[in-house]
Parts: sequence; structure tokens; C-alpha cells
Amino acid sequence: MKKLINTAESVVEDALNGLAAAHPSLRVRDRVVYRAEGPRPGKVGLVSGGGSGHEPLHAAFVGPGMLDAACPGEIFTSPVPDQIIDATRAADGGAGVLHIVKNYTGDVLNFEMAAELCDDVPVASVLVDDDVAVQDSLYTAGRRGTGATLFVEKIAGALAEEGAPLEEVARVAREVDDHSRSFGVALTSCVTPAAGKPTFDLPEDQVELGIGIHGEPGRSRAPMAPARELAALAMEAIHGDLPLRDDLLVMVNGMGGTPLIELYVVFAEVEAFVRGKGARVVRSLVGNYVTSLDMQGFSITVCRLNGELTRLWDAPVETPGLRWGR
Amino acid sequence: MKKLINTAESVVEDALNGLAAAHPSLRVRDRVVYRAEGPRPGKVGLVSGGGSGHEPLHAAFVGPGMLDAACPGEIFTSPVPDQIIDATRAADGGAGVLHIVKNYTGDVLNFEMAAELCDDVPVASVLVDDDVAVQDSLYTAGRRGTGATLFVEKIAGALAEEGAPLEEVARVAREVDDHSRSFGVALTSCVTPAAGKPTFDLPEDQVELGIGIHGEPGRSRAPMAPARELAALAMEAIHGDLPLRDDLLVMVNGMGGTPLIELYVVFAEVEAFVRGKGARVVRSLVGNYVTSLDMQGFSITVCRLNGELTRLWDAPVETPGLRWGR
Repeated sequence: MKKLINTAESVVEDALNGLAAAHPSLRVRDRVVYRAEGPRPGKVGLVSGGGSGHEPLHAAFVGPGMLDAACPGEIFTSPVPDQIIDATRAADGGAGVLHIVKNYTGDVLNFEMAAELCDDVPVASVLVDDDVAVQDSLYTAGRRGTGATLFVEKIAGALAEEGAPLEEVARVAREVDDHSRSFGVALTSCVTPAAGKPTFDLPEDQVELGIGIHGEPGRSRAPMAPARELAALAMEAIHGDLPLRDDLLVMVNGMGGTPLIELYVVFAEVEAFVRGKGARVVRSLVGNYVTSLDMQGFSITVCRLNGELTRLWDAPVETPGLRWGR
Repeated sequence: MKKLINTAESVVEDALNGLAAAHPSLRVRDRVVYRAEGPRPGKVGLVSGGGSGHEPLHAAFVGPGMLDAACPGEIFTSPVPDQIIDATRAADGGAGVLHIVKNYTGDVLNFEMAAELCDDVPVASVLVDDDVAVQDSLYTAGRRGTGATLFVEKIAGALAEEGAPLEEVARVAREVDDHSRSFGVALTSCVTPAAGKPTFDLPEDQVELGIGIHGEPGRSRAPMAPARELAALAMEAIHGDLPLRDDLLVMVNGMGGTPLIELYVVFAEVEAFVRGKGARVVRSLVGNYVTSLDMQGFSITVCRLNGELTRLWDAPVETPGLRWGR
């Protein structure tokens, strides 16, 4: 299993050096990525973080309209409290800081500890738990946080940019999580640099339904099937939990090793499925956004929009990983 | 080899349906992708195309500031002349059309034939041949066209948007190609949907240096090595052909199956290499832009900038695959 790395130990450090070199809008210090221009006085700061290996999440979503700082842990490993504290201070513009936490036990504990230790900064926290695949999982009590994290970061980031107070930014972040559901399908396992071999075995004729973004087991295995059937399995799981209706934001996300042409094939099926339920895809993303290293497969995240969420989704954003104007 | 497709025969059609469904700014008709708002009267139209399997190139680069139309062929197969003619007409705003052609024999012949048959539209053509790896190759007489295609499309697209005449847009397109060089490294083969197995065999302890974007052979094989050494091999090949100096635009491009975290590791090495030669990376792209299906590996494209090229690179662009404002 070949990897474009120098050593397994240095991969996060080396990649952060590359991120800083590629994007003058970002600064990296002590494993914290933050906006070069620093926090905007009076603006609520947004911080997220978690294990590395999910790029562009989170570090490449730092910038105007989205995060103020990110704290990437080692591959698939929670950031430590000191890192989260540093990120919180780097994001603090005097109006408090929102922690956006994916629901994994290590992340939850370390963000909680950091918030307690950082008692001079008002901190609110939102837990993202959008993955309908399994109720409890390896590393997680309750549902896992996956693709909706991007939606929360984008939409809460837009409201913070407008100058809304901390409790309002936290409210909209929770609303996005409430309105969002995800489901993932793996065709292959990921390979971590440290292990150098697949995290799990998946036969050539099977897929893993409900895969987690660290290769955690899903609901079940199923025979490999055409894109139409795999998309329908994922969409039925989402629809069974949160009925599809009205206007939807839909992301078809690649797990890292799947080419874009295949993601567009899946998106066509997802869009047809949504129409079949009488709902509409009015906003979408297709690409690699919340990845699992080199895993082949996809996840689908659906968010039921309303006027406010649509307006905030459309607001300008300027980060290395997500960017649009107007 | 699992693929997210319905059938190998329908993959391009299905993906184009997904592209159209995801991006209301685009229209797809008879295998031509064009801007929904149609050609702008008086603006030079830009058309590119080639085999599918390199997404986001070319179809997802249609939009303001870049292409007016794209004509995707079957996987790794040239578009047919009728398609190119349709694309040319869809792009024609009355000021002529520039064909941006990657140097593969089939593409060159079919674009030439289309230009001849489309004799009521003034057509200029630019051949992109930036790959320093090999002089002649499978499918190509002369150097292959790879990553610089994106640079040509972006920079010529910006000049066309300013209202420059056809000969000026063609001149800057050729200048970008003259100023650009690429080199690719494969860790694994791609797998085409039709074949369902690797295009070539590459042992677990080796890489292919100078790989083409269809899996064509490169210069040689070498033992797998740390990212620093692989980046240096690629950069020495480029530097040997076009000495690195002054201000550079650098793309570290993923071949489709390589995670973003690894591309940032490579970018850090490339940037350090450039500094070591006394030059500067002043603009950059890191990500999957000119891919080869699910191949793992990377390519590096370097363009020597000047004032005009930098200004045009920075001009606004709004396409599904490349987007920035200001």
C-alpha cells in the first residue's frame, strides 16, 4: 500500500506545512490552523477539529464565511485539549466561540475539557450527529457525525459573519444538524499510513452499507450493485429517518479514492430518487469533502432547507476547500 | 475492481446527466456541455474536449472566466467531429472560437476536421503539449498535453472574458503552453470501467515516473520512495526542461485516487524545492483537477508567470471545478 508521505509519523505535520505554503490566507502554528488576518473583533468565532484524514474537512474550511480556526489531530485521532484551547483563543474576537464537534467520544471529551479550561472565553458547543447508519458505533455513543459537519460549518459561519450573537449562531448550527441526515457506502477499506494495510477486509463482490468515516462497521454488507441501487439503499435509509420533502440541500461526497465521474453518476441517481419522492434538490455539492483517506465509496448528506438556511448557504464563502462569491 | 456506475456503456451519459442536474449554470445536449445562458455576443468562445475520465477537466470548467463549451468523449476516447462542431456552434458569440486541444493524435485529427467542417465560424486552435516525460508516446506524436490544459483554459478564458479578439486569445493560450511544463508519477494503475482491471501492472514496491493521464508508459520505473524524493524527481525533470526562476504558478494535481492530505505533503516538498532553486511559488492549486479515473499518484505542473499571466490567472472564474471572485 503506497502512500505519498515522508514518514507515517510526520504526515500531519508535513501536510499542514503544505497547507500553509499553498494558502497565504491561512496560518498554522502548533497544530492549529487559523485565518491569517486573525479574529474579527465582535464576530463570533467558529472552531472545529477532529482527526486528520478527512481533508478538506476541517482545516481547509478555515476562512471568511466558514471557520475561524481548526485543530487537526493525528490521523483518525482526536485533537488534544491544549490544541483546542489554542484554536479557541485564535478564533476569539470578543463575542465568544462556537465549538463544532463531530460526535465521537474522544472529540466530545476533549472539546468539553478545553471549553472548561478556557473559562475566560464564552464557549457554546454543537454536537453533529447526522449519520443514520447505526445508533452506537466503535468510538461513538449515539449517532456519528459525518457530512453534515460541512453544512453546519458553512451555515453557522455565514450567520457569524453577519454579526449574530453566540446563542443565535449556536441555534442555527443545531438546526442544521437537526435538519440533516447522512449515509455512507464503502467499496474498499481505507489504509492508514501507520498500519499500511486495509483497516478492514471487504470482498471484491461486496460493499459495506453505513460505513463510518474511519472505517467503522456499518449496518450490513450487501452484494456489489449498480450505482442506482446503491444510491437507493442510502437514500431509503435517510428517507426512513427524515422524510424527504420540499427543498433539499444534497451532498454526494467521495470518500477519497473515488473518481469524480462516478460521484456524478451517483448524483444523477440521487436527484432522480428525490424527485420520485416529490421533493426537490435545490442546492448541491458533488466532490471529495469529508473523506476517509483513500477509501473508495461515497456518502450522501441531505439537509431540509428553509428560507434562512438557504440564504446562509448561499452567502459568500472563501476557504481553500469551499468557495463562492456574491 | 468495483465502480460506482450503472453499466460500463452508460457511464459518460449518466455522469453528464448528474453534471447537468447538479449545476443549473450548465446545459448538456448531445454530449456537449455549454453555459446555460448561451454565448455572449462579441466574446470569443472557448471550446475544449477530449476523453472522459479526467474530471473535473473539461466539462466542469465550463462557465464565466473559463470555457464556453466542452465535448467529452467516451472514457479515454477522443470526441467525434460532430460533437466538436456542436460545441463550436454552442460557443460562438460571433467573435470566433478557440479550440484548446491536448496533444493526442485522435484529438488533434478530430478537432482539425471539425474546424474545417465548421467553415462559417472563424476557429483558431492551440495545442497543449506540456508533459516533459517523453517525446513520443502511445497515442501521441510529440509531447502529451496534461495539466497545463487547465492553465490555458483559465488564462485564455479570462482574456476572452475581457473582450480580446480571437488572435489575442490564441496568442496568450500559446504563451501559457510555452511557459508550462508537467510531470506525473503513478503509484497504481487506473482501471477503466470497460476493462474492469488495471491498465498496467505496477509492483507494490515501484512507481511509474512520467506516467500519462491514460496510463501510458512514462520514462522509467523506480523504487517507491518518500514524498520528498518523488517530488524532487518530478521537479528535476521539469527544471531540466524549463529552468525554474522568478514567479511560478504551481499545481500539485491528484490523479483521482490519492487523498488530499497526501497532495499537501507533496506540495510542501515542491514549494521547498522551488525555493531551493531561488524561485517563488506565487500562485498554486492543490487537488484533483486533471485526473486519470481512480489512479493513485500525482502530477506537477509549473507555469512561469509574468504580469499579464498573473493578472489573468487572478481574474474571476465561476465554474463547478474552479471558482473564485474579485
